[in-house]
Amino acid sequence: MFPPRLALPPTISHLLAHPPLPIHSTTVSGWIRSIRKQKNLAFAVITDGSAPQGLQVVFLKGLDLQKLTNGASVRVTGRLVQSPGSGQSHELLVDQADAGRVAVLGECNPDTYPIQKQELSIEHLRDNVHLRARTSHIAAMLRLRDRLQRQINSWFEEQGFCYANTPVITGNDAEGAGEAFRLAMVESQHPASASATPPAEFFSRPAFLTVSHQLHLEALATAISRVYTLSPCFRAEKSMTGRHLAEFWMLEAEWAFPADNGVHGVCDLTEALLKETTAPLLDSPDLRVLWKDGDAHKLKTLSDAVNSEKPWARMSYSEAIEELSKIHPSQNFVHTPVWGHALQSEHERWLAETLVGGPVFVTDYPASLKPFYMRLNSDERTVACFDLLVPHVGELIGGSVREERVELLSKKMEDVPGSEWYLDLRKYGGAPHAGFGMGFERLISWVSGVDNIRECIPMPRWAGRMLL
Amino acid sequence: MFPPRLALPPTISHLLAHPPLPIHSTTVSGWIRSIRKQKNLAFAVITDGSAPQGLQVVFLKGLDLQKLTNGASVRVTGRLVQSPGSGQSHELLVDQADAGRVAVLGECNPDTYPIQKQELSIEHLRDNVHLRARTSHIAAMLRLRDRLQRQINSWFEEQGFCYANTPVITGNDAEGAGEAFRLAMVESQHPASASATPPAEFFSRPAFLTVSHQLHLEALATAISRVYTLSPCFRAEKSMTGRHLAEFWMLEAEWAFPADNGVHGVCDLTEALLKETTAPLLDSPDLRVLWKDGDAHKLKTLSDAVNSEKPWARMSYSEAIEELSKIHPSQNFVHTPVWGHALQSEHERWLAETLVGGPVFVTDYPASLKPFYMRLNSDERTVACFDLLVPHVGELIGGSVREERVELLSKKMEDVPGSEWYLDLRKYGGAPHAGFGMGFERLISWVSGVDNIRECIPMPRWAGRMLL
Repeated sequence: MFPPRLALPPTISHLLAHPPLPIHSTTVSGWIRSIRKQKNLAFAVITDGSAPQGLQVVFLKGLDLQKLTNGASVRVTGRLVQSPGSGQSHELLVDQADAGRVAVLGECNPDTYPIQKQELSIEHLRDNVHLRARTSHIAAMLRLRDRLQRQINSWFEEQGFCYANTPVITGNDAEGAGEAFRLAMVESQHPASASATPPAEFFSRPAFLTVSHQLHLEALATAISRVYTLSPCFRAEKSMTGRHLAEFWMLEAEWAFPADNGVHGVCDLTEALLKETTAPLLDSPDLRVLWKDGDAHKLKTLSDAVNSEKPWARMSYSEAIEELSKIHPSQNFVHTPVWGHALQSEHERWLAETLVGGPVFVTDYPASLKPFYMRLNSDERTVACFDLLVPHVGELIGGSVREERVELLSKKMEDVPGSEWYLDLRKYGGAPHAGFGMGFERLISWVSGVDNIRECIPMPRWAGRMLL
Repeated sequence: MFPPRLALPPTISHLLAHPPLPIHSTTVSGWIRSIRKQKNLAFAVITDGSAPQGLQVVFLKGLDLQKLTNGASVRVTGRLVQSPGSGQSHELLVDQADAGRVAVLGECNPDTYPIQKQELSIEHLRDNVHLRARTSHIAAMLRLRDRLQRQINSWFEEQGFCYANTPVITGNDAEGAGEAFRLAMVESQHPASASATPPAEFFSRPAFLTVSHQLHLEALATAISRVYTLSPCFRAEKSMTGRHLAEFWMLEAEWAFPADNGVHGVCDLTEALLKETTAPLLDSPDLRVLWKDGDAHKLKTLSDAVNSEKPWARMSYSEAIEELSKIHPSQNFVHTPVWGHALQSEHERWLAETLVGGPVFVTDYPASLKPFYMRLNSDERTVACFDLLVPHVGELIGGSVREERVELLSKKMEDVPGSEWYLDLRKYGGAPHAGFGMGFERLISWVSGVDNIRECIPMPRWAGRMLL
């Protein structure tokens, strides 16, 4: 691997990948993660966030180390040598007699620093969300998001998909379900001005934050065939579970001219995406940090699933209801499984965790349970859709073949205002197409084993809570 | 180049890159861009949006071509042969006698289809924003956005930067400048419910759409050193120029431990980014489409700039004022250039287009003109910042060294509510750091020669205007 031409000094990760010869002096900048001072010697671990492990630094005597405390930022010059210790391949030897230097760039009062060495509660870290990326878990989650997005982007590029930026502000209010945030009206005059005029809609009509990019992606897919986005979505949901955020990132893809096997073609594509993008990351150092204190059984279930050469389990909604009804007497669900009713969380978990013991695509739900845009099957009571249920997370992906038949769609959309443009997509050279959506934080949760998705996003927002 | 394992049938772009042998039959799906019917023969160009050129299809006699009109979506099977014509390397020969087939998947009434073959006005296409990606210009712009984002992502990865998703919803109201959209309060009960309670803040405090991700990126940069994002930003600006959108995408980067040469290190990095990501695209087929009717002089200025091995011009704000003052008597600006006043658009254009004839970094503006977070220079009246001005676009990038000295910053932020977390970043292991922001649509405008940034984003929003 040839080192890239850097516009900035090398990071610790760069240095460990391309270690300079020890005859050269090496300068490293970062934050002290731990320090142990002995009589003639001090050991510190310095991290710059570029890699999970950090760099061990050995200070020989004669240096002023008084202000070197946890969290302080420093610039250190020494020689990078092979480490005699077992924990690391290299360490930085700082010897004043050999032009070694240390500079404290930013002090950190160890008494008041919110990121103490001992175990910190999740709540304490949420309260200090501006500093929590200093912990190794949150830093590993940030790098995992980066890695996974890069994997996903490469995969879609290979498959001929174009990344698109569809709008966040939309006239679509999610069918009035009350889940969309609405923008406040704006003063026509600056508030400091003398004569205020009554507030008005900035866009001349009500504006909402999008709950999904699907409809806009469909418009692009009827022109450039394969499009996807990884974009923020918003739900004004009061739900306070560990699986919901008011602002989250969603991976959504739409493509025209799908494979001929209906919803199973959509399942095939999403399964290939998930396996091919996550399997290469399972052994990464960041995932080792995240799974360190995790549940070994959970990790094995994940690893078996993404490394499996066999297709994941598939069953229709009707088959799922049948299985659930059979087990109900002994399992005693809170909600009795009934055809035509939504699957509850307890049902989904049982299907993935107990019945299958891995991911399962549940396909062909009753039309009455699903939105207008899903394609009606020939039985005229189910639609060509699926939910992908995975152990410990629940629904990870929802997708479907979209209804391309304009007569059927018009009937379903009679009550939806402003739907002309969506019907136009079918009226003028409409094409069979399909798509799916996946909550990106749920994917991070599944891959990292971090249960609560508030720890799967840098700065979480939920009902009543928005720091920074 | 080995073809990737595809989860979907090959696109036209895939087929042209890896043409199957003519003994195999090939199926292509797409939309008819043009069709010319002769007595025993018909020629059509079919596009699936994967490449600018489309595929020429030759229909031999015996096929029912009646419904093959512009905009119709079709699936065509034939043999891909080397084209005897000069416009393309390959063409698809469809001969019924040789198992050739054509199926119309979606008809398109040529009388009412909004995307007619003749030149369409920009306004007409804005009114039909759901269909305008069917035009070759808008499709090329969409692919250019995709390509440029991939270039940018690779560049930052090489430089050790981590891609981060900072929040859109924030408590920060851009210092009350009235430019931030605010979220409306929410009903505590569903509107259909009987007893309504008074509306309240969903997050228990006022919430705004972010105007910049910088402050949040700074928090992450004090933990993982190098971070960037390409994220939506929002301004409730009434300005209706071709350079402003209410919703736009911004590339923002922050990094700790920058090079030692102050603002010039920040200029170096942004110049490397722009040259290294855009130069490889200048000869791409999509840019040839976009520049086809463009201004040759403008294109040469762009190409000279991004291919130049010499650094771009740099001058301080004070030097710029000096140059502007010298030329003012003959140039007769509307606004007299005066030290301490903002540079006006006319000034910026003259500097980039006339004085320099290329990009120019203007550095070290008066502190009074710039926000609180920029680092005060030792003259105590200017800050270590720059604006990058480019011909025909104006300001493309703004960046600075950030103020890391907590005493100086505290004084400047006395009136800013809720700034404790931002000061904490300096108080606990603060580190020297720098960053910049670039409007992505302005970059697209510069690279594509498309003047109005409403044509540089799939679905533009501006004051009074939000379709879909």
